[in-house]
Order: sequence, then structure tokens, then C-alpha cells
Amino acid sequence: MSHKKPGIARREFLAGIGQAVGGSAMLRAMAAMGVGMTAASCGSSSAASTQAPQPSPPPPTGMLSPRPQDWPPNVGVGKTVAILGAGIAGMVAALEMTRLGYSCTVLEAQASAGGRVRTIRSGDVVTEVDSIQTCQFDISDSLYFNVGPSRIAQHHELLLGYCRDFAVALETFTNDNRGAWLHSPNAFGGQPQVARRVHADTRGGIAALLSTAINQNALDQELTVADKANILTMLRQYGDLDFSNNYVATPRAGFPGQENIGSRQRGEILSARQLQQLASDIFWELRTSFSQGFDQQPAMLQPVGGMDRIARAFEARVTTDIIYKAVVSEIRKTANGTRIIYTDPFGSFNTLDADYGIVTIPAPVLAGIPNDFSDSHQAEVASFQYSSAVRIGFQARRFWEQDHNIYGGITWTDQDITQIWYPNHGFQGSSGMILGAYIFDGPAGAGFTGLSPQQRIDTTVQQASNVHPQFATEALHGIGVAWKKIPFQLGGWGTSNPSTLLTADGNIFFAGEHLSILQGWQEGAILSAYWAIDGIVARDRAI
Amino acid sequence: MSHKKPGIARREFLAGIGQAVGGSAMLRAMAAMGVGMTAASCGSSSAASTQAPQPSPPPPTGMLSPRPQDWPPNVGVGKTVAILGAGIAGMVAALEMTRLGYSCTVLEAQASAGGRVRTIRSGDVVTEVDSIQTCQFDISDSLYFNVGPSRIAQHHELLLGYCRDFAVALETFTNDNRGAWLHSPNAFGGQPQVARRVHADTRGGIAALLSTAINQNALDQELTVADKANILTMLRQYGDLDFSNNYVATPRAGFPGQENIGSRQRGEILSARQLQQLASDIFWELRTSFSQGFDQQPAMLQPVGGMDRIARAFEARVTTDIIYKAVVSEIRKTANGTRIIYTDPFGSFNTLDADYGIVTIPAPVLAGIPNDFSDSHQAEVASFQYSSAVRIGFQARRFWEQDHNIYGGITWTDQDITQIWYPNHGFQGSSGMILGAYIFDGPAGAGFTGLSPQQRIDTTVQQASNVHPQFATEALHGIGVAWKKIPFQLGGWGTSNPSTLLTADGNIFFAGEHLSILQGWQEGAILSAYWAIDGIVARDRAI
Repeated sequence: MSHKKPGIARREFLAGIGQAVGGSAMLRAMAAMGVGMTAASCGSSSAASTQAPQPSPPPPTGMLSPRPQDWPPNVGVGKTVAILGAGIAGMVAALEMTRLGYSCTVLEAQASAGGRVRTIRSGDVVTEVDSIQTCQFDISDSLYFNVGPSRIAQHHELLLGYCRDFAVALETFTNDNRGAWLHSPNAFGGQPQVARRVHADTRGGIAALLSTAINQNALDQELTVADKANILTMLRQYGDLDFSNNYVATPRAGFPGQENIGSRQRGEILSARQLQQLASDIFWELRTSFSQGFDQQPAMLQPVGGMDRIARAFEARVTTDIIYKAVVSEIRKTANGTRIIYTDPFGSFNTLDADYGIVTIPAPVLAGIPNDFSDSHQAEVASFQYSSAVRIGFQARRFWEQDHNIYGGITWTDQDITQIWYPNHGFQGSSGMILGAYIFDGPAGAGFTGLSPQQRIDTTVQQASNVHPQFATEALHGIGVAWKKIPFQLGGWGTSNPSTLLTADGNIFFAGEHLSILQGWQEGAILSAYWAIDGIVARDRAI
Repeated sequence: MSHKKPGIARREFLAGIGQAVGGSAMLRAMAAMGVGMTAASCGSSSAASTQAPQPSPPPPTGMLSPRPQDWPPNVGVGKTVAILGAGIAGMVAALEMTRLGYSCTVLEAQASAGGRVRTIRSGDVVTEVDSIQTCQFDISDSLYFNVGPSRIAQHHELLLGYCRDFAVALETFTNDNRGAWLHSPNAFGGQPQVARRVHADTRGGIAALLSTAINQNALDQELTVADKANILTMLRQYGDLDFSNNYVATPRAGFPGQENIGSRQRGEILSARQLQQLASDIFWELRTSFSQGFDQQPAMLQPVGGMDRIARAFEARVTTDIIYKAVVSEIRKTANGTRIIYTDPFGSFNTLDADYGIVTIPAPVLAGIPNDFSDSHQAEVASFQYSSAVRIGFQARRFWEQDHNIYGGITWTDQDITQIWYPNHGFQGSSGMILGAYIFDGPAGAGFTGLSPQQRIDTTVQQASNVHPQFATEALHGIGVAWKKIPFQLGGWGTSNPSTLLTADGNIFFAGEHLSILQGWQEGAILSAYWAIDGIVARDRAI
């Protein structure tokens, strides 16, 4: 669900920690988040403003991110834990702490677990703070809409480990489909460009230009004679250049008419576009570099049948009690632990006392719950920013496959809708679920959030039709989610740098994707849960 | 199954046609192959020796590749066709010509259809000219071994159209997995390199070097001031450079220890490798550019359950008779057609007379069948080269997933085994089928072909263990195919430039993947079948 580069996220966040809590807490916190870093490299104050992070030496001993095998068996026997929220962080905490002997109770405001790990199918209801939508998709295994997280990086090994243990079936998810399109109303006459052509021309143009410089002896200070020869050879492969290292054209770019099925011109070569043209708007490069990101590279995965298979699998295995429809109304510190006041579906107030609390409630929701946290904890909760993520999905004839030979992946546009996602499953069925808009954040996200569901759908259809005219007539049963309007979530994912919330307030600990190096990812929720558990175990181990 | 760039294949082949049969036949043949090209661009005699093809103008009218909708209904009523070979080309010919009213008979030497579209499962027997192997894999839906074609480009729309019509379920196939490895015994101390690091350092190094040249005003002849600024901005994204356009390091490359699960150093940044180092051996660039190729780019597809699902689907729908175990022993021209002599399983000789023949038998097999083809047809059959493709597969614990976070894709090595393929399905099961060697052709292919099955397996285990030591102890039930030793195939795919065989000899036409622009691909077999059909229809339409 996140588009952030881990390096940037990490550095922004570490810089934040450094400012807020000083070196020692910072070191421990970094380890918690799954980061090994030295204090020296964290101290770089330019972190948040540079594009690329600096290299750093190996982490010192003892700075490793916690893992379940670190915790002694039975360390929690006789201790109680109140876990607020049955999202991934809360369920991981419950699962692992129960294994350690803790007696856990999970309070979940909604009728089922998973939090933002949510998949919508026929008949499901989307309730926002000011609207209700019902999903009108046909009933079909392949017609599901992951409105929250939708992909898993193959190196998100903690989440994948749980999937393996729980037998959650996985299949490949495609980010980078070279047959998908890139579209700007202001370039190429508004005609979508097949991604492979942009990729090929970018590589070819860069390789040819560098070759020119090398051949003009402009880099003789930097390169030996042997280097020059080697790099010129390399560049011919890299850009598919001719023997003179000119970029003329390449079959990598595809053939004329490839954007539609039925072309008989296979083998014809498209003329090369000038690098200057592609460089004149950073749109092309930003979007083609997206899947270079560490957490967005191939291969990626998705659960067969919908991301909520993971939520359901956790839910089935959290052997402790989850109390559903339990809306927390107060969080208090007590002499030896915490007291939680919550309402049940009958409107009664209930009290839960525990030795420890783990609060995974998203900050925008938590900010509205009376508590006696420290001033600095309250301040960070109050100011924590969340993305205005919006997704709008439709059922449609699989026109992207049938008309355009596109099987999965993402088309990018610089209109507000930002992305069109094609399903990575159910190939060649009669219909499929297509994402007409996925807006990460920013003014476009805020703008869509402010619209009514029908207005969002209409705007999506209008903009998406500029890319695929079929949207105007074939996109059916539109339904959307603006995460800032979803009760008990109030945002897509955390975007502020966590700091104070990485430390406990008395016996109350905090977790959730927002308190991790991987904001917006389920793996981040797990890392944050491990960090909270580690803090509690450290206290009980010390006894 | 092919690693050839279409552009190179096309140009080599068109140059060959130009030399052999002159302009008119060449033009028609090019159209047949699905290629629209002008005579001018085909005439380039340097075609076969350049890395990249030249651009060409749009094809003239009438040069379009044939499609079924071109052929008039019932054009074949009352006519008979003998089709030799029930591979994809033969079955497509039978299917489409039956629809046109032709009465087709297919002679297939083996006991089932599909030709090289073959999938091996538990208990299946691989017979080579001098050996017999039996597959010892456990019985499991996911333990199958595609020994022939294994992937489908999403723009192979003819094949995918049949898959849609036949309801062959598809799933995503990954070529380019950035978590897979690159390995050379002679580089980095023989330690495998995670692909994402090589990709990131290559992009970063190229972008930084070009930035240096631009900043030194070395390209002021080529670039305006505005171009320079735009391209420098672009290069920062492209290579993940810092604000001074230096490449220091990038999270795109991953983190230390990423090659194994359990690393807690996520977020740590690897130091950048010098471009000079990566350029010193073209191995790195060749392998990382592989999936830039038009037919190897993402997204690619595979049938769920094995590639032979396609063969079985065709077989079920070829309503005409396929005569199995019919070994062709003579192919003769008659006054008005063709006469085929074949043996049946009882050793009896049979005669099949037809108005037309379509010969899809691979050239190395055809060369051994007595016939009265023209001298030039016989000469081309006799000299047609085929790849020495070899594949060796194993059943193993999914150590690539469990130990290394690799989910599908290809690891490359410059040892003879060339490639290790991880399965793109059955993720997180207890065991999987791993390809320990896939050799396209060349001396390594010839060498492995010359070995006994057990020697091939032993050599594969020995070399693959240099990449994954687990091969030495966990790779079980090795089984392999050397296509040059498979009866009735005698090669992987055609690699010569087709020429005379694109034209009929009397009423005998030729088809098969080798007679297409897409040698080695099922889509090529379909194109070749359409070409043969088109030639026959043209005659009957003219009546």
C-alpha cells in the first residue's frame, strides 16, 4: 500500500528520532524497527532532504531487530496484556505473547479482525463517516477488491513466514508490466504510451549519450582505456545500441500498433524517441523507476482469493479472546499496569485491567480517546500524519486483456487518479475487477476524500476514460474507499516520523504500521509488534 | 523456450530470404511470418552482424500477416489435407482448416499430441535415442516439469486467444526476479550476487557517469541548457543519485545479508559497486538485459498445472482424426496432391492420399524421411540447424523460498548449466520442482547432450551447488531432456533462417516454429500454420 522508498522513510524517521529522544533511545528504536544503523549515519541532519541515503557501516552488536526466538519461553506466565486493535500488529502481538505465556485480551472495534487488511466482495458494505456503499460486483471468486494492502514483497519474510505457517496460498503480483501504459494528457497528444517503449528509449538514450561522451574522451579522467572499452561494450547491451553505440531503435520497444490486439505489424521497429523529450517531464522517469524500489521490485506476491485471507488466517489462530465491537473509550495508567474502558454492542461500559497495554489503534483515532498518556506521547499522537489514500474499483469486461494484451500490472497517469491496476489473477475470465484510481496521498487524495462516493466514481470514470475509453461504457459497479473517512482507521497509513511512540508510557506500549520502518506495509505492522513485545519481555526477563 | 531477440532473428532470417528467393517471395514471406517490412529495410546485408535492427517505414498494403478472418467460409469443402505432426502448428492447421471445410487427417508419430509442448510428472518416461528415464517426483499437482516451452509473452495473442477459447487457466510467470541471483565463479570470489544489487549499481553507475559528462559540459554540442537540466533531474531518479548527481548507494540494492533469510539489517545500505567492475565482464549486463527483450519482458504467463494443458486443450478440440503412432516413411508428390506412406503400431504400411500436405515435422527428422521434394527444399531441410537445448529438473525442499526469499524467476550463472529456474507456482509448499540447468544451445548444450542422463544430473548438481549448496544434498529425482536426442524432435528449436521452406513444393506446404519469426515459441508455430493455410486457401480461392 506504500509508495515510499524505504531509504527515505528510514532516514526521515531516524532523523526524527535523533531530534526527539537522543542517541540511546534512537539506537534501540532503530534496532526495533528492523534497522541496523550506527548513530553516526543517523545523525545526518540532511537525511530528510536528500534523494538517496548514505552508506553506513555494519550495525554494532546488540542492535538487531527483535525476533520471537529472542524471547524466553514462559516469560509471560501470570501476566496479562490488553491489546487494542485486531489488525496485523495486534494479532501478531496476541499470537506471539500467548505463546510466551501471557494472557492476552484483544479489543477490536469492528465486527471482524484485520484492520485495514480488507477485501471487498459482492454484497459487502463500505461505511464511511458520511456514506454507505454496497458492493454490487457479481458473485465470483476472482471479483474481489483489496482496498488496503494488496501486494507483498518477497523479502517481507516475517509476513511470508506466517503465510507459510497458516497455509495461505500465494500467487505472483506484477507491478512492472511493460505492456501496461503511461499516460499524460500533456504529452504525445494525450496518447497513452506502452511502457516498454518508454523503458527502451530511456535506456537507449542514456546509453547512447554516455557513449558519445566516452568516445569524445570527455571521461578520460574517470576511466582508463580498458574501462572505456568495457563500458562501451556494456552500453551496447544495456541500451541495445548499434555497433557504433548509436541508439537507433530496438525491438525491446515493441511494434507499431502494439497497444491494440490484432496488429499484424509484429517485427516492424518503432522509431526511437529522443531522450530530451522523455526528460522534459519527470513523470516518465518517476513512474518507470517505481518498481526499482526495494519493496516494489519483482517478484511480488498476493494471497490467492484476496488479501483478507491473511487476516482470516491470523484471526483463526489467535487462540486468545478477541472481543469484537469493543470500542475503547478510555485508556488509563494504573499503579501496576493499565485500565481500558470500552463499550460493548449493547452500549454498556466495560473495564479491562491488565499488566500491560499494547495500543495499535491508528493515531487519528487514538487522538480522540481520552487517556492519561504523557504530554509528549499525546503530542505525537495528535500530530501524527496519515495518508489520504483512495481506491476506486470496478467490475468490467477484461478489456485490458481482450483489447490490449495487458495481463496484470499498473498503468500510470498524471491525472488525479494516478494509477489503474489490472488484476493479477482470474486471467481470461469474462470479467474482472479493475482499479480505476489509486491515489496515495496529497491534494488529489484529499480532493477525492472530500467527494461523495458517486462523485469519486464519476470523476474516476471520466479520467480513466482518457486512458481507456472503455471505462465510459464498461466500468460497472464502482465502489471506493477513502481511508480518511473509514471509521476506526481515519487514514491510509502513517507518514510522520515516529519517535516518542516508540517508547512505552508506563506499562503502555504502542504498535502499528505507522511505528515501523515499513509504514503502510503489513511487514511493518509485524516489526512494530515485535518491538512492543520485546519491550515487555525485557521487563519481565529482568525480574 | 527461445532466448533470441526477435529483431535479430527477423533480420537474420530476412537477409536469408533476400539472398535465397528474391524480392517478391521475400515480401510475401515476411507478411506470412507476421512481419510487415519494406524491401528496402530487408535488403540491408549487414543485418545479421549488427546488434540492433534499423527502423523501417510502415508496411505496404497487402503485406499483413494472415489471420483466420481472412479466409472465406467453406473454401475447403471437398478438399483433403494430410497434416504431418500434431504439435501446435499441426493442430492449429487442423483446427482452422476443418473450420474452413477441409477434410484433415493428422499423422502423429507419438502416442499423444503436443510435440515439444511437453510436461513431465511422476511416473512419466523420457525416452531418448540411447536412454530411458522415469520421473521419480512425488505425485503432486505442483511437481511438474515443462521440458519444452514454459512461458508465454502477453502479446503472443494468437496463442492466448486459443487459451481463452479453450479455457486454459493462466498465471503469472516471472523472468526478472530481482531477488534471484547472478553468479560467476570468476567474480566476487564466486559469491552469488543478488540481482537487485547488480541492477541498482548498473543504473546508478551509468547515471552518475553521464551526469559527470554533462556537468563537465562535454555534451554541450548535443544538449541545450534546458536539456541538460532536465536530463540531470531525470538521472537522479533513474540511478537514485544524490542531489549532486553522485551515486553513493541506494536502498534499491537491498541490504547486507539479504541473500539469506533472518537478516536483521534491513534498512542498512550496501555500498555501491563501481561501474568499471561490473563492466569488466559482459556476463552481468547480458543477463540483466535478458528480460528487456520484447518476448521476455513482464508480464509473462504460464498455464496453471503445466504447459501441456495447452496441448491437451488443442487435442480435445481438433475434431478431425489424429492418427497416433503413425510414423511417416515416405512423402511423395502426386499429380494433384500428395501421398504419404506411414507405418502403424503393428508395423503395417499405410497410404494417405490428400489434395494438400502440410509438413510440420522438424527438419532434422524430416531429413531422414524419403521424399521427392525439390532440390532446394531438400537442401534446406538437410542444412536446417536446431538448438541443442537441455533441461535438467529436480524435486527439492523449497530452499530458495525458505532459506533465501526467492519466489520464482531465474538465477544466471556463467557455468555450463546457465540458468536455475525457481517455480512460479506452488509457493510455500513443502517441495517444488527446480530447474538446475537450462542450456539454450552452443558447446555447453552439445556437451550435455553427449552425456548420459546420470552424468548430466551429476554435472548439474556439481555446478548448481556452487550457487546453491543445497543442491548437493537436497536436489532429488533428477531428470533431464536433451532435445537433440528426443526421437521425432531431434532438436530444441530451429535456428537457421528459413527461406525455400516458406514456399510450397507442389501441393506440399511446410510449417512449424522453425518457419516463423518466433522460432522456439508456440506463437511462432501458430504464425507458420497460418502462413501455410493462407497459401492453400489462396489456391482454392482462385478457383
